[in-house]
Amino acid sequence: MGAEQLATANIGVVGLAVMGSNLARNLASRDGNTVAVFNRSPERTRLLTTEHPESGFVASETIEEFVSSLARPRTAIIMVQAGAGTDAVINQLSALFEPGDIIVDGGNADFHDTIRREAAVRATGVNFVGAGISGGEEGALKGPSIMPGGSVEAYTTLGPILESIAAVVDGVPCVTHVGTDGAGHFVKMIHNGIEYADMQLIAEAYDLLRQVGGHSPAAIADIFAEWNEGELESYLIEITAEVLRQVDAKTGKPFVDIVLDEAGSKGTGVWTVQNALDLGVPVGGIAEAVFARAVSSHPEQRGPVRAGITARPEIAVVGHTFHDDVRAALYASKVVAYAQGFDAIIAGAEKYNWNIDKGAIATIWRGGCIIRAQFLNRIKDAYANDSTITSLLVDPYFAQAITDGESAWRRIVSTAALSGIPVPGFSSALSYYDSLASERLPAALVQGQRDFFGAHTYKRVDMPGTFHTLWSGDRSEIETVGSSH
Amino acid sequence: MGAEQLATANIGVVGLAVMGSNLARNLASRDGNTVAVFNRSPERTRLLTTEHPESGFVASETIEEFVSSLARPRTAIIMVQAGAGTDAVINQLSALFEPGDIIVDGGNADFHDTIRREAAVRATGVNFVGAGISGGEEGALKGPSIMPGGSVEAYTTLGPILESIAAVVDGVPCVTHVGTDGAGHFVKMIHNGIEYADMQLIAEAYDLLRQVGGHSPAAIADIFAEWNEGELESYLIEITAEVLRQVDAKTGKPFVDIVLDEAGSKGTGVWTVQNALDLGVPVGGIAEAVFARAVSSHPEQRGPVRAGITARPEIAVVGHTFHDDVRAALYASKVVAYAQGFDAIIAGAEKYNWNIDKGAIATIWRGGCIIRAQFLNRIKDAYANDSTITSLLVDPYFAQAITDGESAWRRIVSTAALSGIPVPGFSSALSYYDSLASERLPAALVQGQRDFFGAHTYKRVDMPGTFHTLWSGDRSEIETVGSSH
Repeated sequence: MGAEQLATANIGVVGLAVMGSNLARNLASRDGNTVAVFNRSPERTRLLTTEHPESGFVASETIEEFVSSLARPRTAIIMVQAGAGTDAVINQLSALFEPGDIIVDGGNADFHDTIRREAAVRATGVNFVGAGISGGEEGALKGPSIMPGGSVEAYTTLGPILESIAAVVDGVPCVTHVGTDGAGHFVKMIHNGIEYADMQLIAEAYDLLRQVGGHSPAAIADIFAEWNEGELESYLIEITAEVLRQVDAKTGKPFVDIVLDEAGSKGTGVWTVQNALDLGVPVGGIAEAVFARAVSSHPEQRGPVRAGITARPEIAVVGHTFHDDVRAALYASKVVAYAQGFDAIIAGAEKYNWNIDKGAIATIWRGGCIIRAQFLNRIKDAYANDSTITSLLVDPYFAQAITDGESAWRRIVSTAALSGIPVPGFSSALSYYDSLASERLPAALVQGQRDFFGAHTYKRVDMPGTFHTLWSGDRSEIETVGSSH
Repeated sequence: MGAEQLATANIGVVGLAVMGSNLARNLASRDGNTVAVFNRSPERTRLLTTEHPESGFVASETIEEFVSSLARPRTAIIMVQAGAGTDAVINQLSALFEPGDIIVDGGNADFHDTIRREAAVRATGVNFVGAGISGGEEGALKGPSIMPGGSVEAYTTLGPILESIAAVVDGVPCVTHVGTDGAGHFVKMIHNGIEYADMQLIAEAYDLLRQVGGHSPAAIADIFAEWNEGELESYLIEITAEVLRQVDAKTGKPFVDIVLDEAGSKGTGVWTVQNALDLGVPVGGIAEAVFARAVSSHPEQRGPVRAGITARPEIAVVGHTFHDDVRAALYASKVVAYAQGFDAIIAGAEKYNWNIDKGAIATIWRGGCIIRAQFLNRIKDAYANDSTITSLLVDPYFAQAITDGESAWRRIVSTAALSGIPVPGFSSALSYYDSLASERLPAALVQGQRDFFGAHTYKRVDMPGTFHTLWSGDRSEIETVGSSH
C-alpha cells in the first residue's frame, strides 16, 4: 500500500466486516472490476488482502489514499453499521469526492435517513445512493438481491457494477433502479417485513403439523421438502426442511427441540409496521409476525400465565389430509402477506413520489434474497397483466389460489382455535381476506359510536354529504359543513 | 374587558373551541374557581362570555391581559390544536410567565413532543404539564378523566383545580399525577389505543350476532343493553345499544344500515401501536383494530376483490346460546386487549423513567372517559392485590374469567372462520392467549431459520451460552462469543 495510489479501481468498498468483505470479494471476482478496499482499522484490510490475493484488491490505510485509488466517477459502497457510523463515513467521503462521484450506502439504513442523506450529499454535487442488499453473508459473496435508490444519473454508472454481482434468475440480474433517494431502502424494509410474515406462517404450519398432526420434526422436514416441489417452492421452505431435519449432536434430539423458543429481531419488521401505519396500509400479517416474536421473548409473562392454567383444550382429531389443509392455509396466508407488502410499496411510492415498478421488484426478489421463490414470478405476472390492480388479491391467479385453498384455510383456523394452537398469522390473514370480501363491515357501527361520543360525523350510503346525529338532543340528523371536527 | 386586569383568576384557559369552552365552563361552575379566558380571535371569547354570563369569566383580548389576570402561581390550560399551534401558545406564555407559574397542555399531544416541551419550558423555571383529557365535549363540560404529567411541584397547585372538575366515581375524582413530563400524554395515548380495541371487539360481536345469529339491529340493541347489566357494563356497550336502536328518519331503516361502513381515525391508535412496537410490547388487539378501520376505508380494494368472488362460505348453523358465546368471547378478548394496553404502560414507564401507579390509572379511567367501565375496578383490584404481576392475565380474577369464557371463545373464532365473518380482534386475542399458554412456541424454528440464513445465533434450552450451527459447513455447533452479529 503506497501513499500515492493510481486511480485504477472502478469501485471501492468501505467497511470490511463479513458483509463488506464478501461484497468486495464478489465484486473482485467479476470481469472488469478492480476493487479498492478500506477499513477504519487497517488490520482487517490486511487480513482480507492476505487471505484473498486472488481478488487483487487495491488496499488503502487512509481514506485519502482510498479516494485517490478510485477512477472517476469515483464510486464507493459503504458497508458499515447503520446509524452514526454511516454518517461519519459519508461525511469523510463527501469531503473528498467531487461532483459526479457516487457514494453508495449498502447498509440496512432507515429510509428516512437515506432521504435526508441523499438531499445533503446531492447539495454538494456528489451522488448518494441508498441501496438495500439482501441475502446475508452468503448472498453478498455469491449474488445478492440489490435494491438501489438515488438518481438515474448515478445508476448509469452504478447499475452495470451492481448487475455484475447480483444473483441472476432466468438470465435477469436481481437488481433494478427502484426509485429516487430512499426508495431502495424503503423497498428493502418491506422485503424484510414480508420475510417476517413468511417465516411466521411457516412456523405456524410447523406447529400445527407437530401438535395437531402429531408428526415428528423429521417427518415434517419431509413434508416441507415435498412442499418445496410445488407452488410453495422457496428458499425459506427449503431451509425449514433443513433445520427440521437437523439432529442435535449433544443430545441426539431434534435440533428444533433444543433451541430456546424466544425469537429475536433486528428492527426492520418493526419499521415496516410503523411505516405501514403511517401510510394507512393494513399489514396484519407482518404485525402479527413481529408480535409473535415479541410474545415469545417475554418469558416473565409466559411462565406465570402458564403456571395459572390448569387445563388446556383437547387437540382436535384430524384426518389424513390434514397436512394438505395446512399447505393450502399456508399458501393462502402467504398470498395475503405479500399482497399487504405490495400495498405498502404502492402507498410508500405515492407518499414519497417514487416511480416504483412493482413487477420489477417482484423480479429482483426471485433470487439472492431471503424470500426468493418461484412465487414471485406470479406477482411479476400479475403486474405485467395489469399494473393498476389495487390489490394482488384482484389478480385472477391469486383470486383462484385463494378460492382453491379457502375451505382448507377456514378448517385450519377453526381447528387451531379449538385446539389451542396460536395461529396469529393464519387467522389475521383470513380475517383480512374476509374483511375485503364482506359486502358490509361493522365499521358502520364504529362510525356510529364515534359520532355518538365524539361528534366525529359519518357519511351515508344513500346520499352525499357528512352528517351528525344529535345524540344528546332529539336524535335528529343534521348535515355538517366541511370535514369532521 | 379592560386593558388592566386584576390578578383575580386562579386558572386560565387559552383556546375556546368546543373542548376549551366546555372545560372553561366546567372550571367556572366549581366552587373556588375564577376562570380567565383567551382566544386568538376575540369574537369567540365574546360569544362565550355573552352566552355564559353565569360563568363569571375574566376575559382578555390580548395574551398580556390574560396573563396579568391570573393570580400567582399563574396557571393556564392550553386547549388548541396539537402541533404548531400549541408550540406558538407555549412560546407566548413562557415569555410572559415567571418561575413557578404553570403551563398546561390539555390537547392530544404526542408524548414525545410533551417531553421535549417540558424540558424546554422547565429550563426557564416555568412548570409545564402535559395533561391528557378524555371524555370528549361532554366530558370536558361535565367531568372528564384527566391524566396530567409534569412535575410534582406543579401538581401541588394544579391537582386540586383538576380534581374540582374531573368525573367522580365512588367519591374518587378521575385524576391522578400520572408521572413526570410526558407520562400523562403517554397514558392518554394508550387509553385511546385500548378504546380502538374495545370498539373493534364490540363491532365484531355485533357482526356475529347480525350475520351468524340472524338478529336485527334492534334485537342486538336489546342484547347489548342486557350485557350492560353484567360484567361487560361500560359506556361503550351502553352507547352501542343506543346506536343500534336508532332508526334513520329519512328511510325508516336501522341507522347502522345507512351509515357508510368506512371507519375514520385520528391518529392516536396508530401512535399506540407504533410506540408499543418501539417498546417490544405485542398489542395485537389494538393493531388489528387500527388495521380493521384501515381495511374498511379502502373501497378501491374492497370493491374489486368482492367483484372477483363467486361464492362465499355458508354461515354456520348455531344454537340458541350463540349470543352467550359471543358475550363470553367479547369479554375474554377485552381482557386480553386491556392486558396488552397495561403491558404497554409498564414498558413505557420503564423506558421513560416514570413511576406510574397502574392501579391509579385504572381508577381514573372508571369515569369521564370513553372506556369507563366497572371492569376497571377489576384491574384496580388486580394491581392492589399484587402490583408486580407481569400480565393482567396472571391475576386470579382475570385468569378465571378467561377460563370461564375459553370454550365459548374458541367456538366463536372457529364459527367465524368457517362462516367468513372477519374477527381480527377476537382471533388475535385468542392467538395471543394461546401463545402465552403454550409450553413451547415455534419461535424455536424461527430462531433456527435465522441462524441458517443470517448466522443470527440461538440459545439452547439445556445450557447457557449462545450458539451457531455451521449450516453451510459440516453442520456442527459452535459456541459464539458475545451477542449475535
